[in-house]
Amino acid sequence: MIRVSTKFDRPDTAFVERLAGYSSATIHEAQGRLGALDSSIKPVDRRMSLCGPAFTVQCAPRDNLMLQTAIEYARPGDVIVVSAGEYSEAGSFGDVLANACRAKGLGGLVTDTGVRDTEDLRALGFPVFSYSVCIKGTVKETVGPMCQPVSIGGQLVRPGDVIRGDADGVVVVRREDAGAVAVASRERVDAEAGYIAAYRAGKSVAEICGLESLLVAKGLVIDGE
Amino acid sequence: MIRVSTKFDRPDTAFVERLAGYSSATIHEAQGRLGALDSSIKPVDRRMSLCGPAFTVQCAPRDNLMLQTAIEYARPGDVIVVSAGEYSEAGSFGDVLANACRAKGLGGLVTDTGVRDTEDLRALGFPVFSYSVCIKGTVKETVGPMCQPVSIGGQLVRPGDVIRGDADGVVVVRREDAGAVAVASRERVDAEAGYIAAYRAGKSVAEICGLESLLVAKGLVIDGE
Amino acid sequence: MIRVSTKFDRPDTAFVERLAGYSSATIHEAQGRLGALDSSIKPVDRRMSLCGPAFTVQCAPRDNLMLQTAIEYARPGDVIVVSAGEYSEAGSFGDVLANACRAKGLGGLVTDTGVRDTEDLRALGFPVFSYSVCIKGTVKETVGPMCQPVSIGGQLVRPGDVIRGDADGVVVVRREDAGAVAVASRERVDAEAGYIAAYRAGKSVAEICGLESLLVAKGLVIDGE
Amino acid sequence: MIRVSTKFDRPDTAFVERLAGYSSATIHEAQGRLGALDSSIKPVDRRMSLCGPAFTVQCAPRDNLMLQTAIEYARPGDVIVVSAGEYSEAGSFGDVLANACRAKGLGGLVTDTGVRDTEDLRALGFPVFSYSVCIKGTVKETVGPMCQPVSIGGQLVRPGDVIRGDADGVVVVRREDAGAVAVASRERVDAEAGYIAAYRAGKSVAEICGLESLLVAKGLVIDGE
Amino acid sequence: MIRVSTKFDRPDTAFVERLAGYSSATIHEAQGRLGALDSSIKPVDRRMSLCGPAFTVQCAPRDNLMLQTAIEYARPGDVIVVSAGEYSEAGSFGDVLANACRAKGLGGLVTDTGVRDTEDLRALGFPVFSYSVCIKGTVKETVGPMCQPVSIGGQLVRPGDVIRGDADGVVVVRREDAGAVAVASRERVDAEAGYIAAYRAGKSVAEICGLESLLVAKGLVIDGE
Amino acid sequence: MIRVSTKFDRPDTAFVERLAGYSSATIHEAQGRLGALDSSIKPVDRRMSLCGPAFTVQCAPRDNLMLQTAIEYARPGDVIVVSAGEYSEAGSFGDVLANACRAKGLGGLVTDTGVRDTEDLRALGFPVFSYSVCIKGTVKETVGPMCQPVSIGGQLVRPGDVIRGDADGVVVVRREDAGAVAVASRERVDAEAGYIAAYRAGKSVAEICGLESLLVAKGLVIDGE
Repeated sequence: MIRVSTKFDRPDTAFVERLAGYSSATIHEAQGRLGALDSSIKPVDRRMSLCGPAFTVQCAPRDNLMLQTAIEYARPGDVIVVSAGEYSEAGSFGDVLANACRAKGLGGLVTDTGVRDTEDLRALGFPVFSYSVCIKGTVKETVGPMCQPVSIGGQLVRPGDVIRGDADGVVVVRREDAGAVAVASRERVDAEAGYIAAYRAGKSVAEICGLESLLVAKGLVIDGE
Repeated sequence: MIRVSTKFDRPDTAFVERLAGYSSATIHEAQGRLGALDSSIKPVDRRMSLCGPAFTVQCAPRDNLMLQTAIEYARPGDVIVVSAGEYSEAGSFGDVLANACRAKGLGGLVTDTGVRDTEDLRALGFPVFSYSVCIKGTVKETVGPMCQPVSIGGQLVRPGDVIRGDADGVVVVRREDAGAVAVASRERVDAEAGYIAAYRAGKSVAEICGLESLLVAKGLVIDGE
Repeated sequence: MIRVSTKFDRPDTAFVERLAGYSSATIHEAQGRLGALDSSIKPVDRRMSLCGPAFTVQCAPRDNLMLQTAIEYARPGDVIVVSAGEYSEAGSFGDVLANACRAKGLGGLVTDTGVRDTEDLRALGFPVFSYSVCIKGTVKETVGPMCQPVSIGGQLVRPGDVIRGDADGVVVVRREDAGAVAVASRERVDAEAGYIAAYRAGKSVAEICGLESLLVAKGLVIDGE
Repeated sequence: MIRVSTKFDRPDTAFVERLAGYSSATIHEAQGRLGALDSSIKPVDRRMSLCGPAFTVQCAPRDNLMLQTAIEYARPGDVIVVSAGEYSEAGSFGDVLANACRAKGLGGLVTDTGVRDTEDLRALGFPVFSYSVCIKGTVKETVGPMCQPVSIGGQLVRPGDVIRGDADGVVVVRREDAGAVAVASRERVDAEAGYIAAYRAGKSVAEICGLESLLVAKGLVIDGE
Repeated sequence: MIRVSTKFDRPDTAFVERLAGYSSATIHEAQGRLGALDSSIKPVDRRMSLCGPAFTVQCAPRDNLMLQTAIEYARPGDVIVVSAGEYSEAGSFGDVLANACRAKGLGGLVTDTGVRDTEDLRALGFPVFSYSVCIKGTVKETVGPMCQPVSIGGQLVRPGDVIRGDADGVVVVRREDAGAVAVASRERVDAEAGYIAAYRAGKSVAEICGLESLLVAKGLVIDGE
Repeated sequence: MIRVSTKFDRPDTAFVERLAGYSSATIHEAQGRLGALDSSIKPVDRRMSLCGPAFTVQCAPRDNLMLQTAIEYARPGDVIVVSAGEYSEAGSFGDVLANACRAKGLGGLVTDTGVRDTEDLRALGFPVFSYSVCIKGTVKETVGPMCQPVSIGGQLVRPGDVIRGDADGVVVVRREDAGAVAVASRERVDAEAGYIAAYRAGKSVAEICGLESLLVAKGLVIDGE
């Protein structure tokens, strides 16, 4: 008998809302270049975006029993994070379950296996990030851990960590760091806005990045024309 | 001397038309989770869709002589299915041949190698499903079998089998099963509509899928909050 | 100490402009099926297109110091070509540097590693062709060659060669061949227009391609129905 | 209810024995460069070698129920050929089943998924060709076709076709061609022995292959030193 | 400032020694088909074998600073487990560091990036399991977590978990389960010895596995000859 | 008409001989972490080793016409370097051509496509480094450049550059740098011997690498037990 608890601490809603305002790339940089899932996990449509607490679950490849179970127990706003072995040849989630998620107000799905019914997912506007799109069906045979740390896209995701995904990919923020990362993201966005304004005003990369002294220090001499 | 016949039995047109009304994922499930080509074979544009009898042909990698030959002998509505060795670095089909196919009223192309001129293919609206998009040209050197069973995307496709492709991928239906699969697809669509309605009405996954007894039978006990 | 010169011969502007009028696939064929980069290097958005002299640079994987340097020294119209080891898990270029490129009037970027901020790149309309889209940041540690021949997508690209990219992929034209290839591309486009007109007028592949004698010569006999 | 028959025609034993005397590469060439499985299917040990009639079976990925069934019904000398979806992350066969095969006198196993206990397989000397070596276990859930044509390594294999594998890879010979291919293989081996003797005697590639006229015909002029 | 502690609980030595007596595949099965790292992580030489407590460390791709640090702090018998982003193009470990490990009595290395000097590693007999063999050097720039849970080969590995690797691959056993898994492994080995003996004595798969009733239950009827 | 010259400068034989005494990894480091081909290009047998001037040639994928031509024109000691598009599914070289190479005293072959007859290659002792082992035959149709710079394994190789390959992989040394790299390799080997001796004598990584101050500078504080 396996016993699992669905109880875990979720992050402060205010932090989640603030993180939702920054891109996944910004957040990744703001927390010290940490937490990015592999680039192979992408939104079904580049307009899809999500941000919420991770509700983690482990599935066997080509088996979505625990994903169904996760939908049952996840709370509104949660992002279901499925670790299923980076298997491209399974469509573990489609329009029926997406409607179930939508009805419950879940925040989205991130999985390292495949999904299907992508046109319906687009129409429904439920954000799904997956390793593949595949029509092949799954079985419902294997039980496994839920609300435990999982490995996905080369990252460790714990229940209650914040998951942020957009057109470029997915990043995980440790629950306890959510507030600080939101602050650091703000700073980074402001700094970047300054750089962009400077470039538009005609400043050069050398001026903005202090390139020359950096290159000299590394022994590179450039004979510009 | 190689001798090939282009004579094979095509499925009942009524069955093809009915199958065209179901998604590739639905058909795959309806026939017992069979017939799905690998997820690496995808439409050039997600709005492309096809359904028709397979006109099969075997090409050498980076060689489209037999594809040209297939276009010559295929009939209106046929879907040309090219097995060419899962080779990404060749653009074996483009706007010129697509115009030839269009003029003949062919139903589409499915190939496990690359195609090119994809903007023209989109404009022309000719449905093409391929393993890659690649600008590299092909030679016209190697003859091979036509209207024989081929291996593509891990599936065996026989001439006259029904090929159905949409945004999610491609499925093959045995010619002799086309009618029964259309019936089963209808049933599945109806059942799914019922599930979706139930979810929208607030039913839970546990209620719809009988999850609890299934999990108990497998020894999983969940401590919900 | 490494010494690099940024001086190299650029192609005649008129040739670049003419090549910009042909697709990458056409140019590849017109110059004898040469110069196509691997199909894994694709535009961030299929509507992106570029044509210009290559400004080449070598980066270490996950390190964009030399890319920044290249932006500083490249000239208006230049296409920066980055060889960085076909590494998917790095986002070496994003909206800040894209603004820098835009302000300088650069022609585009082609790289065999990843980029990020793709929605911003789309909005900005700066053409970027990459091996991946990835949010993971890069370091700025390693100096390397610039304006030297590089290996990218299985092709050798020299500074001053012409780079042409569109929805289908990227091709390189040797600087000294630019004029001749523009002429040959024109001829090919004209010939293809003729074929397309003929197909639309109802001609068959056999008629257009002289298929029958070719197949007979290779020993294939077809029993059409 | 699925009904399968294990009855199929096997090739003449004399033909199988003769084919066992030629390498897989030789046979592939001798039958016109046909029948080679993808190079991703390799022997567990390069000293392993097999030749026998194919006993085909279709497994679901990560499920070896039908492989067990095939072992039960295959005959001495048969090579079990498993199509299971090119899935690397499953160890579908190991020392226990290898002992069962050995005891029955089976000829070997070729599979497009993984196997395990490879040191035991080596010690036992039972020839196994696989897509991967993996310790992950499989379930025994899914029934499927047996003694039907399967797709494996990009080739169609029918029950009773001859399978020949060695250090370089695997080739399939159609049952009805076995005799003719043995003859053609003999001729090729003899021809190659002649070439090798000529090279050892100091003849050049140009002399043996008639290279010069071939290159001239294709427009290549070489300025040797 | 990052603060890391190297303090963690190691498993009972007796349990480690007992687990060392079972193959990685056996242990994986004995603990319920859990804990297997992806099959892409393999020994440098099939004769290499290791078993010991995991000393975990996170490296940036192409950066071995933290691996060096781990060698400094690991204890005799520990297996260093490096998570570095599944990057093939780096040789992060070679003969010099292997000598350092050997001198300290470490138990081995498991990494999801590359190593080099493999002939020296063989000669030295230090067991190394890696994602690739690559000559490309690494930098020593990036600090990161040590003795924290890491994601490697799709599994979560915590410091102090037991790592067992052999010719077939690598499995992780939770520290707290080590004793129970050793017992279950013993049972499995005994059961398998019984099956093997039965097969050698001429029993059939049907007899050993109760195949017939299983197949009947699933609706498969076989017409043996 | 294509005109190619086989004339190019070869490196000083003494330099080649000295480089042959160092491993590919050592040379790669000694020249500043440059010149390593992708790790996917490996010796057919780990005991194979080569060092010699590159005789470069470009083949079309699945076409070995120019490889044959290269064998004809290469000189004793030359290492033939074939760029053929990183295509795994072709066996472009086998025992017959290996005998031709052997008879001419060539130094070896490095290719980014496949080879076959590997047991014969082992028996013959002719060193071959390839991207794959594959039985599939090639055509002899396409002419291309010879003794020109080629792109292989992500590196640019020029005729006359030195190619060094061993169990770990392949590195290219610019012809003009051969002498200096031999000197630097010697220094590196000596330094490494010192490190190894120190480790064997019980020195720690911290002592040898000055780890502590490095980590402090980067802000990592370690609480050892």
